[in-house]
Amino acid sequence: MVWTRRHILSLADFSQAEYDVVLQTASSFREVLSRRTKKVPTLQGQVVANLFFESSTRTRSSFELAAKRLSADTINFAAGTSSLSKGETILDTAKTYLAMGTDMMVIRHKEAGVPQAIAAEMDRLGVRVGVLNAGDGQHEHPSQALLDLFTICTLLDSEQPTLSLLEGKKIAIVGDILHSRVARSNIWSLTASGAEVHLAAPPTLLPKWFAEYVTDSDNQSAAKPRQLFLHWALDPALEDADFVMTLRLQKERMTSHLLPSLREYHQQFGITRDRLKRCKPEVKVLHPGPVNRGVEISSDLMDDPQFSLISQQVTSGVAVRMALLYLMGGGKVA
Amino acid sequence: MVWTRRHILSLADFSQAEYDVVLQTASSFREVLSRRTKKVPTLQGQVVANLFFESSTRTRSSFELAAKRLSADTINFAAGTSSLSKGETILDTAKTYLAMGTDMMVIRHKEAGVPQAIAAEMDRLGVRVGVLNAGDGQHEHPSQALLDLFTICTLLDSEQPTLSLLEGKKIAIVGDILHSRVARSNIWSLTASGAEVHLAAPPTLLPKWFAEYVTDSDNQSAAKPRQLFLHWALDPALEDADFVMTLRLQKERMTSHLLPSLREYHQQFGITRDRLKRCKPEVKVLHPGPVNRGVEISSDLMDDPQFSLISQQVTSGVAVRMALLYLMGGGKVA
Amino acid sequence: MVWTRRHILSLADFSQAEYDVVLQTASSFREVLSRRTKKVPTLQGQVVANLFFESSTRTRSSFELAAKRLSADTINFAAGTSSLSKGETILDTAKTYLAMGTDMMVIRHKEAGVPQAIAAEMDRLGVRVGVLNAGDGQHEHPSQALLDLFTICTLLDSEQPTLSLLEGKKIAIVGDILHSRVARSNIWSLTASGAEVHLAAPPTLLPKWFAEYVTDSDNQSAAKPRQLFLHWALDPALEDADFVMTLRLQKERMTSHLLPSLREYHQQFGITRDRLKRCKPEVKVLHPGPVNRGVEISSDLMDDPQFSLISQQVTSGVAVRMALLYLMGGGKVA
Repeated sequence: MVWTRRHILSLADFSQAEYDVVLQTASSFREVLSRRTKKVPTLQGQVVANLFFESSTRTRSSFELAAKRLSADTINFAAGTSSLSKGETILDTAKTYLAMGTDMMVIRHKEAGVPQAIAAEMDRLGVRVGVLNAGDGQHEHPSQALLDLFTICTLLDSEQPTLSLLEGKKIAIVGDILHSRVARSNIWSLTASGAEVHLAAPPTLLPKWFAEYVTDSDNQSAAKPRQLFLHWALDPALEDADFVMTLRLQKERMTSHLLPSLREYHQQFGITRDRLKRCKPEVKVLHPGPVNRGVEISSDLMDDPQFSLISQQVTSGVAVRMALLYLMGGGKVA
Repeated sequence: MVWTRRHILSLADFSQAEYDVVLQTASSFREVLSRRTKKVPTLQGQVVANLFFESSTRTRSSFELAAKRLSADTINFAAGTSSLSKGETILDTAKTYLAMGTDMMVIRHKEAGVPQAIAAEMDRLGVRVGVLNAGDGQHEHPSQALLDLFTICTLLDSEQPTLSLLEGKKIAIVGDILHSRVARSNIWSLTASGAEVHLAAPPTLLPKWFAEYVTDSDNQSAAKPRQLFLHWALDPALEDADFVMTLRLQKERMTSHLLPSLREYHQQFGITRDRLKRCKPEVKVLHPGPVNRGVEISSDLMDDPQFSLISQQVTSGVAVRMALLYLMGGGKVA
Repeated sequence: MVWTRRHILSLADFSQAEYDVVLQTASSFREVLSRRTKKVPTLQGQVVANLFFESSTRTRSSFELAAKRLSADTINFAAGTSSLSKGETILDTAKTYLAMGTDMMVIRHKEAGVPQAIAAEMDRLGVRVGVLNAGDGQHEHPSQALLDLFTICTLLDSEQPTLSLLEGKKIAIVGDILHSRVARSNIWSLTASGAEVHLAAPPTLLPKWFAEYVTDSDNQSAAKPRQLFLHWALDPALEDADFVMTLRLQKERMTSHLLPSLREYHQQFGITRDRLKRCKPEVKVLHPGPVNRGVEISSDLMDDPQFSLISQQVTSGVAVRMALLYLMGGGKVA
């Protein structure tokens, strides 16, 4: 297979072959990261611009480390001290970084669609610059979903992680589905694998129309029918689940009257050791971080390596982002 | 010719030979930037400190990329989180970076004269550290004027850009002349070339005394008499112009009652496709960025590659700043 | 001797042999810094994370340069834009950087004990990541005390700086002892050397119990009894002193009613050329910076190379921090 996708903006139209190439490339980079000298010269002399219009520490650091380990030069754009406050449009900012010689742009913005608009502009200009969506509003966060996928698949087969390993597995996604770009991207990848995906949230955070999110799509990237199930309570989602993905709860949701209190949320949808008894015995828990301990997940469970994959997710993040930058930069598919 | 200038603070006393060395050195670096591996080992192991006492994204990124492509290590000083707020003087901050082993300092400050004061202190201490003025108040911004010059000269001769190519050309500089360090530096370089420089602005932004800005100087760096003309209307400046440089309009000018409104400013001094008809047919438009679309320049004109050199200016910026750091660092003149 | 200390958190239990290894390793790196190419490949491919929960320019830049000169990749965590504001605990932030592949963490926090807590967590997890305390509240700042020590010892013997060179010397530490982590770390190292350490401050900034700070300790790292003396006036501390260390005065101390005014403080405890006459003729003055000129020290004295070691301290800082990162990273002891 040859990698032909210049931009990584959404997982809605990712093919099974593309998922597998990402998983296998990340797998080879994970090996690099276990060495003492965690660096390869792949992107030497190329420039990766991290344009984080919405501030972020964790994701920006992960991309920055991924780029540095590929020996790329990185340039960081810090929202707040930017030309934006001087009245420049976002597209003009992106074109400025293009003109400076940027080879790849990693973009986060609080509004959905910004990375797509920048990618379209790059294509219109006929330049070979790749754009990676590092989170756009409540829309998508593809690199997070790919690192979640890589974390799960390497657990199932550490040597040959492939999408098909998830076929028939039951995966619960719990929490603020409505506002979560992480959930949206994960729904695309997990349903594409043939897994059963069960969403669980209070009705205010999981509207009925969500059922049509993937099933209504005429997209052909999933080989099998996509299986998505909605629950307004936690237990049915957990029943015999192989994996439980919890989502970060923004505290702003309380002030906007979508939730009564953190305590009540934890009582109804927080993941605890006790609640996990409904799942398969070998169940694992994921969380994209940063975690509100005692809200989305009980503190002791988060620290229990028997159940928690949270630390592996962070490590996977660097390997997967190295793989994405490598593939966008024209690296050969293994 | 041998490059002997340690600091680059102002273009007031730049010689024709110095302009030509910068243009030719930048030209060779522009070739480096067109390669896939945009990096040379020239400044390996040297440290470039970007001391931006006034915050900036665009210029700081340009210098940072230039330094990295010369393989220098960079260290960034972020105004706001600095020791300044702890009562340290600016000279003491600069001396701290000197003592840490900085080889070159790139300095921006909202007050005119700060880079000069730091350069004088370095000389007094007898250290071989070069200081580059990246914008001091309303005084000068030499690297911006040099990148403008490089952009124009490479357009006129892409292989051998030299200052003399501008002789007899008519160049209009339009906008907030009074407050613009970009205009001041450009006036020195463009008049030194033998071009006719026409300034156009409302009287509040172009006081009469500006006529003496270069003509009154006893400076001998210009081989011919400097030709500077003032206009309080746009049309006479545009008449048969070869190049039009627009300047960024700070929105603060309105609140300080120097201008009635952005709309009125655009009607009188904004550059549009229609207005350009007064110029030479092959006229080109420059802007230092960030642009207020629809104020200094109409949005469609800004995006029209037939007229706009704005993107080339940004690219030139990296090549010119590589050349300046290279020459300050003792690199051989080509 | 073999270096066995994984974390550098406090100087309370540093042995004479450890001080000497740091001094000798820093001495060899100081030589590297005097070359044109100030870089060695020692930590290539390793990642140093600067986690500055309390903002800092000077110390962060010094560590960043030290890491870059050892060819490490650096990743900076900026307080304010961090996940902390999203409710994540400090330990979880540190574990995130661990999971990304950090090899060493340099940590500053406004609360005492944070680097220790992170180091304990790393040990509990069984990972080989070193933690360096870059300043924790009013507790310790070991790298500052080690660079002060290196500055003094290289003055006494530029080729073979060792702790024993300080034996019998009289060293005055003047200023806000109560709130100073720099003073606390220096008291451990200087008393361990066999020097006489004299503290001088107004009673509000030097409580009586401070006399027990080191003398009461059952710590065996000092070969000889530790000699610490307290003075509520400046002159007895300066009498025949070999070195005078002034401490930065936080202006907040005035608003909290610990001092009447900066002017009165300077009159009573400010170091001036005149007051230095009580010291040994070859006395030298140190200050950790940033300096309030005319408060802790008179402006002319600060700039007088006959007396001031302030600039040398900054240079020593990079060499000492290179040594510490090198030793923590498993570098061989010279």
